[in-house]
Amino acid sequence: MTVTLRRHRVREESSTARSRPLSDALAEDESAAWSTGAWREGAPQGSRRYEDIGSLALEAGGGLPQVRVAYETWGTLNTARDNAILVEHALTGDSHVSGPTGVGHPTPGWWEGLIGPGLPLDSDRWFVVASNVLGGCQGTTGPSSQAPDGRPWGSRFPFVTVRDQIVSEAALADKLGISVWAAVLGGSMGGMRALEWAVTYPERVRRCIVLACSAYASAEQIAWCQPQLLAIRQDESFFGGDYYHQPQGPELGLGLARRIAQVTYRSEPELDRRFGRAVQPGEQPVGGGGRYAVESYLDHHADKLANRFDANSYVVLTESMNSHDVGRGRGGVRAALERVTADLVVVAVDSDRLYPPRLSYEIAQASAASGPVQVISSGHGHDGFLLETDQVGGIIRETLSRNVGR
Amino acid sequence: MTVTLRRHRVREESSTARSRPLSDALAEDESAAWSTGAWREGAPQGSRRYEDIGSLALEAGGGLPQVRVAYETWGTLNTARDNAILVEHALTGDSHVSGPTGVGHPTPGWWEGLIGPGLPLDSDRWFVVASNVLGGCQGTTGPSSQAPDGRPWGSRFPFVTVRDQIVSEAALADKLGISVWAAVLGGSMGGMRALEWAVTYPERVRRCIVLACSAYASAEQIAWCQPQLLAIRQDESFFGGDYYHQPQGPELGLGLARRIAQVTYRSEPELDRRFGRAVQPGEQPVGGGGRYAVESYLDHHADKLANRFDANSYVVLTESMNSHDVGRGRGGVRAALERVTADLVVVAVDSDRLYPPRLSYEIAQASAASGPVQVISSGHGHDGFLLETDQVGGIIRETLSRNVGR
Repeated sequence: MTVTLRRHRVREESSTARSRPLSDALAEDESAAWSTGAWREGAPQGSRRYEDIGSLALEAGGGLPQVRVAYETWGTLNTARDNAILVEHALTGDSHVSGPTGVGHPTPGWWEGLIGPGLPLDSDRWFVVASNVLGGCQGTTGPSSQAPDGRPWGSRFPFVTVRDQIVSEAALADKLGISVWAAVLGGSMGGMRALEWAVTYPERVRRCIVLACSAYASAEQIAWCQPQLLAIRQDESFFGGDYYHQPQGPELGLGLARRIAQVTYRSEPELDRRFGRAVQPGEQPVGGGGRYAVESYLDHHADKLANRFDANSYVVLTESMNSHDVGRGRGGVRAALERVTADLVVVAVDSDRLYPPRLSYEIAQASAASGPVQVISSGHGHDGFLLETDQVGGIIRETLSRNVGR
Repeated sequence: MTVTLRRHRVREESSTARSRPLSDALAEDESAAWSTGAWREGAPQGSRRYEDIGSLALEAGGGLPQVRVAYETWGTLNTARDNAILVEHALTGDSHVSGPTGVGHPTPGWWEGLIGPGLPLDSDRWFVVASNVLGGCQGTTGPSSQAPDGRPWGSRFPFVTVRDQIVSEAALADKLGISVWAAVLGGSMGGMRALEWAVTYPERVRRCIVLACSAYASAEQIAWCQPQLLAIRQDESFFGGDYYHQPQGPELGLGLARRIAQVTYRSEPELDRRFGRAVQPGEQPVGGGGRYAVESYLDHHADKLANRFDANSYVVLTESMNSHDVGRGRGGVRAALERVTADLVVVAVDSDRLYPPRLSYEIAQASAASGPVQVISSGHGHDGFLLETDQVGGIIRETLSRNVGR
């Protein structure tokens, strides 16, 4: 009878995964997160560099005594120091905007083809900077970093907001001698930071491109985050966030969170077109314990993320995204956006259901600094901001070609 | 520092819940699932009645040696036995289509106002039958029922398809002396069974109303089910499905599944309108460990379901929904729908994103038995088929008023 097998499959797989000793993992698979994730102390650093920016007081209270920011750069800062561009990554992105996989870089650049000589972010002309976000796990101080007592922060890592994140990035800019960015740009969580930059430091941002993003986290976005946060916290291997010295971390919960997120990142017609009711080859879902192809697709994305990302960072960054509201303490969204003096370019993806175009129009309509919303045509949903690099590149080129005041 | 509290909140709450002994639960709260859920042996039966329909061979192989079907009725079967209507419930519904809460009925009728004298399903004229689905937990044989060895089926419960479910309902109809239904109707998972009835037993169905449903489970629907199934199976209290004699079951996993489902059941604009970024009164989500109002809303729905529903039934029924494809083994959807001789009424909810109207149009276009799709106007998304009872009632009245052939 296959039924018993089917019901036990997940538990058996999970207990196998959980019981795999660290030494075996190291021997078996160099890309396994638990052994070589870039967020582990002593992991290879790839093309990252670091700046220590000292202590940071935090918006919601408390602070961090020692913050390090990891970043990568392309091109050269000119003598006038006015050709610097900051690229902001999304939730599971990092400073590796462009470049191959390799030691310390388990994934290739997430905006491959946009940075380089002659490319939209032309490294012959611009000095492009991308830093890993505060609270992240790819080199910048986050919950997997060492606290002053030598142990990982874990559950003790404080609540950080999007505003805290850009304050840390401003400190990095100071260290690099960049007082004004020629442009700050990013999509999704990266768009939140780009927009916060333009609102918080209007005098430091000349152009701002905000892709697939909103002025505040919406009810729907918060609603989708909630089961993701719970999936991680309810994982028996989460240990309240203090799992770093356990033989296994909450990868099952993180994988579950990623599956939920992955569906919100794509569009219904795309899933229908790509997968329909196709059965995963060699498997039988109707009574045989097997999977549909779309389930295998989600498994794949879950495994990939769980093998390269820290669950605590996922929690911290998700909560910082929920906190996103440029209007908080500033008299509302419209009043906050009135501060913006940058050339503000708001970009929506037409099939995005997580950050529906309506929310992009809200930004553009509330800000005199913004032109009309630029719409990326894509069947991929929210992920269109990552995948439609031709259209994104065109918008970047056009924005950078415009003269801006000051 | 509130941070530590925030991170530990879920785990602490969950361990409190998990460690509550059964006897305390009984004493404290009569509505707690673990003590009085209708799916537990010996639970109060309310207005249900039962028919034993004997053994059942199953589509995917294997069988059940003894099947009992729970049902409720309204009105009287006439002497011609031609006034019977079958109402099919959705995933977490049951036979209690109409009627108050009470002993054995933790929820009021899920289509309140549609059955009764003078109402759309007029009990002065029609004999309305609603049975609990095969694999469910509200009286009909399911994984929480006793197997022949006296223990609950648990992990041993076999895979059942939508077709198996209607075969069991046909056996109930035989027992009740109903050879032809004047109408079979239902929404969502209930719509799957209604449509399968019209395809499998065309000679037994005179009218068929299929609301907020599709001819097959789509890639998107399967994609949303996957993290829900995993949430339950990954719960440490699931024990592979054999948790009935444990002090605690997988309510955390079931609650997580419900949260995911709940968002898919509603619409983005509705969540925005009802909750926006409102904070739950007395709580502070930005660094205070508190919740946004929309999170509290999801918690509420999760708790409600976890307190009244069996997680194994949720798994079995979700997998049966994934199996839904009227075209399987019948030469495809169009060929299957050609069998239908009932007056087929296909109903879509305009804001439904889980069963988008496109899928309703597919049914109507593939079937000569169907008129144009009826569209329910609602801001509530998929749940519109449950909530817009005025519009649903109008469609039922109109359908029942039409003379049908044979």
